[in-house]
Amino acid sequence: SNRKLLILPGDGIGPEVMGTVRKVIDWMDRRRAVSFDVDEDLVGGAAIDKHGAPVTDATVDKAMNCDAVLLGAVGGPKWDDLPFERKPERGLLRLRKDLGLYANLRPAICFDALVEASTLKPEIVAGLDIMIIRELTGGVYFGEPRGIETLPNGERRGVNTQVYTTSEIRRVAAVAFDLARKRSNRVCSVEKANVMESGVLWREEVTKLHGEQFSDVELSHMYADNCAMQLVRAPKQFDVIVTDNLFGDMLSDAAAMLTGSLGMLPSASLGDVDESGRRKSLYEPVHGSAPDIAGQGKANPLATLLSYAMSLRYTFDLPEDADLIEQAVNNVLAKGLRTPDIMASGMAAVSTATMTDALIQELDKM
Amino acid sequence: SNRKLLILPGDGIGPEVMGTVRKVIDWMDRRRAVSFDVDEDLVGGAAIDKHGAPVTDATVDKAMNCDAVLLGAVGGPKWDDLPFERKPERGLLRLRKDLGLYANLRPAICFDALVEASTLKPEIVAGLDIMIIRELTGGVYFGEPRGIETLPNGERRGVNTQVYTTSEIRRVAAVAFDLARKRSNRVCSVEKANVMESGVLWREEVTKLHGEQFSDVELSHMYADNCAMQLVRAPKQFDVIVTDNLFGDMLSDAAAMLTGSLGMLPSASLGDVDESGRRKSLYEPVHGSAPDIAGQGKANPLATLLSYAMSLRYTFDLPEDADLIEQAVNNVLAKGLRTPDIMASGMAAVSTATMTDALIQELDKM
Ligand SMILES: CC(C)[C@H](C(=O)O)[C@@H](O)C(=O)O
Ligand SMILES: CC(C)[C@H](C(=O)O)[C@@H](O)C(=O)O
Repeated sequence: SNRKLLILPGDGIGPEVMGTVRKVIDWMDRRRAVSFDVDEDLVGGAAIDKHGAPVTDATVDKAMNCDAVLLGAVGGPKWDDLPFERKPERGLLRLRKDLGLYANLRPAICFDALVEASTLKPEIVAGLDIMIIRELTGGVYFGEPRGIETLPNGERRGVNTQVYTTSEIRRVAAVAFDLARKRSNRVCSVEKANVMESGVLWREEVTKLHGEQFSDVELSHMYADNCAMQLVRAPKQFDVIVTDNLFGDMLSDAAAMLTGSLGMLPSASLGDVDESGRRKSLYEPVHGSAPDIAGQGKANPLATLLSYAMSLRYTFDLPEDADLIEQAVNNVLAKGLRTPDIMASGMAAVSTATMTDALIQELDKM
Repeated sequence: SNRKLLILPGDGIGPEVMGTVRKVIDWMDRRRAVSFDVDEDLVGGAAIDKHGAPVTDATVDKAMNCDAVLLGAVGGPKWDDLPFERKPERGLLRLRKDLGLYANLRPAICFDALVEASTLKPEIVAGLDIMIIRELTGGVYFGEPRGIETLPNGERRGVNTQVYTTSEIRRVAAVAFDLARKRSNRVCSVEKANVMESGVLWREEVTKLHGEQFSDVELSHMYADNCAMQLVRAPKQFDVIVTDNLFGDMLSDAAAMLTGSLGMLPSASLGDVDESGRRKSLYEPVHGSAPDIAGQGKANPLATLLSYAMSLRYTFDLPEDADLIEQAVNNVLAKGLRTPDIMASGMAAVSTATMTDALIQELDKM
């Protein structure tokens, strides 16, 4: 086959939830005659333990030469005290940067079967379906100068630089407008143009691109602090939100938590289409590595499985197979199966393994 | 009298809600023999219209020479298209900076009578009482270099600088630890030390200060994205949160919205104590200028009144009078009076004026 998938399970519950995906990949091969060249490698703490770095050049090379990367999660207390440059997170950040994955798609969807899991009132979140597009290779995450210096008076000074250029803003905004056209055709662009010049530029460039190429899409602008409030007050007012790396980090996590089921939410990170027609891409669940429950069979594998389904949709052009997997997820939820993180009274608490078996059974029925 | 208060009503509903405070100040004079030298001036759009700048040097001078500033709100669509440097917000930012108001205290309290107004389930927010301490004169709000430049290739580039020094971090952290001692003795310090060196410095300096002077206070650390999630998931886990200017902007607004009643939340911004023993201070409601309802008698004056009460507590050392006002607010709510923003079925919808009369009546009874 020529579908090349690189699996990077990472740390904590990463390897467990990736086990579920492996079983579904086998099923796809067996029953749908859709096969993948699957390679697997280390990232995060696992790579630090083996190689002394959160990702090696060889692994980055592999990631560059596959069609999609599927990542579990990175980090854990074991590596918390490492110096900044050697932390597990640096592996993920290097992959994003080296692969040029500038558009992070973070759906915040409230699953009907899980409305009660939200801390918000059901009427506020039932049917919620937002897509947050977060810029992922620019801004304060990568801006220079950066670092900590000691001043003549003995004080220290920590600096980071928030920086965006015209083209960085335009390319991620184009992804947002494109996606909006396939949804409810509304984009809300979020910055702090009242306080930051980089936000002024962001607003101007998004507005310009909109006028040039996407004037059929409804565009609005909102300050980031107000957006944080509006997500809590009335999240269903949004369709697509596009914002920078740092605001996107916080807003997408807040939005994810609104749904009450972080263990359900996938994400995609996309780069440009290269000469060979290939768009670099990385898929990962929104949840973290959850070291506290790692190795106990308690992990919810659905976010990672749905991330794999996103790869079928966005990278491998297999929308029907993506649909099958999403349907299987809906079916296991409808049957009342719940891993501990989404357990509710009257439902059946199951392990990662039982959930996986149930998913395969549902797939077999289709 | 030597209690000097400068009132800056600002824009939108600012003047209306300040009218309520004026009546309470008169009541204090009449019934408590507590009098103020009240001066009033312009800020924001109102100052732009009159003087062409969002705050004049003369107004800043007045603010420097009073004991406390009480501000309404700034901004509105009329001034939205002004260039960055002349926007209404710049007036507020200049006051914060010139007065050295580095510690912004933002209580997020869920009033018992208003639990139902929250979009969150009652069990998640009932009894909520968080204090967010936001650094207010540093970080990306004021860091240099900043601006928009045009590159040789014709692209533009927007830059802002996130910068913190040892002493900037220590002084705001000290305010947080001090306040925690008077509350539940817990401080959660929030940054992105996994991504930003300025966050690494923040975490190290807070930890150091804690070890040196505040080891009796319980200290924890949290990443800003996780904090945004935890505020939605389980806000009552927090006592005092201390964070930087930009994270604080978003997190305090999200926290405020959890309570369901933005129209109820005051804030205080404090500077250092000067040679004369005076601590510069500015008090303002968390809500904005709400231009859509300005001039219609619909504004909720309680957040501004509670901001005035905070000034009695923190600047004027009149805790009993602050208590009286807070009690009057509780009483009008208990009687079922509600401005439109907090209206609920079975309650009595009232105007700003009726709410004000009811407050004075309650005060008269005490
Ligand atoms: C792990 C961390 C570096 C990362 C980020 O801040 O981008 C994470 O929070 C995310 O959102 O993917
Ligand atoms: C009006 C604006 C400049 C201000 C800020 O960003 O600080 C506001 O959002 C606030 O939180 O007081």
